[in-house]
Parts: sequence; C-alpha cells; structure tokens
Amino acid sequence: MAFVDIVGYSAGAITSLTFLPQVIKTWKERSARDISLMMFVIAWINEVLWILYGVLLDNWVIILTNSIVLSMSSVMIWFKLRYK
Amino acid sequence: MAFVDIVGYSAGAITSLTFLPQVIKTWKERSARDISLMMFVIAWINEVLWILYGVLLDNWVIILTNSIVLSMSSVMIWFKLRYK
Repeated sequence: MAFVDIVGYSAGAITSLTFLPQVIKTWKERSARDISLMMFVIAWINEVLWILYGVLLDNWVIILTNSIVLSMSSVMIWFKLRYK
Repeated sequence: MAFVDIVGYSAGAITSLTFLPQVIKTWKERSARDISLMMFVIAWINEVLWILYGVLLDNWVIILTNSIVLSMSSVMIWFKLRYK
C-alpha cells in the first residue's frame, strides 16, 4: 500500500471516531447545555450527503465511515434534546 | 458538472462549516463545560492528516476544506482550555 493510501485510510478511520469522546462524555454527565444542536444537525445532514456520495461512487469506505459518524450525530441530537 | 460531483462538493462545503455553530455558541456563552476536549483534539490531529493527504494528492479542495476545519478545531481547543 502506498504512503498516500495509508494516510487516507488513517484519516478516514480517525474521522469515524471524532464524535465518540463527546458521546461518552455527554452520556456520563447527562448534560448538554454547552453543546451546539446546530453543529450536530449540520453534521447529520452532511453525513447523509456523504453516504449518498459514497453510494453514487460505490465506495464502501466512504459509506461505512460516514454511517458511523451519522449514528453518533443522531445520538448527540437525541442527547441534546433530552438533557438540554 | 455531474450529479455525483455536485453531491461531493456540497458535502465538502458543508463539512467545512460543521464546527462553526459550536464556535459561535461557545464564544457567546463563554462556557465549554459540556464540551469534550478530546473530540476537538482528535478532530485537530485528523485535519492535519487530511491536509497531508490533500498535499500528497495535490487536491486543493481537500486542503482548503480541512484547513477551515483545522482552524475551527484550534479555536475550540483554545476556548475549552480558557472557559473550561
């Protein structure tokens, strides 16, 4: 595998984990007052677009990575509405 | 421009704006207690990797989009350390 591919796959893998620490923190502390709902709504819409892009290109790395981020964005929107 | 390209550019443009509502909210409210520092540290490292990927591919859309997200992640890390 070329260096450029390793960098790309690493970046993709880390992207899918970006929201995880926030999900864990909010789940533990049951508080989301300082969290921007709009950030996760934008992220949610964005992930749907990325998944559509992956489907159109038949690229499973894009589909899988963004499905993980979509699910975490959904959890954060639910947390924000529940815990305020 | 093909439909797939429109979807890709739209997704890229929205990605670069994802953190903006959080930056504005935290700047206004001077409070970042519920924010995960780790989320933005992961995002920061991730953006550096994406920019490296863009440089290696000589792809200015990737470089520009991720430079915007990198700058917003830097601001959020600074806000988190400052406002707690």
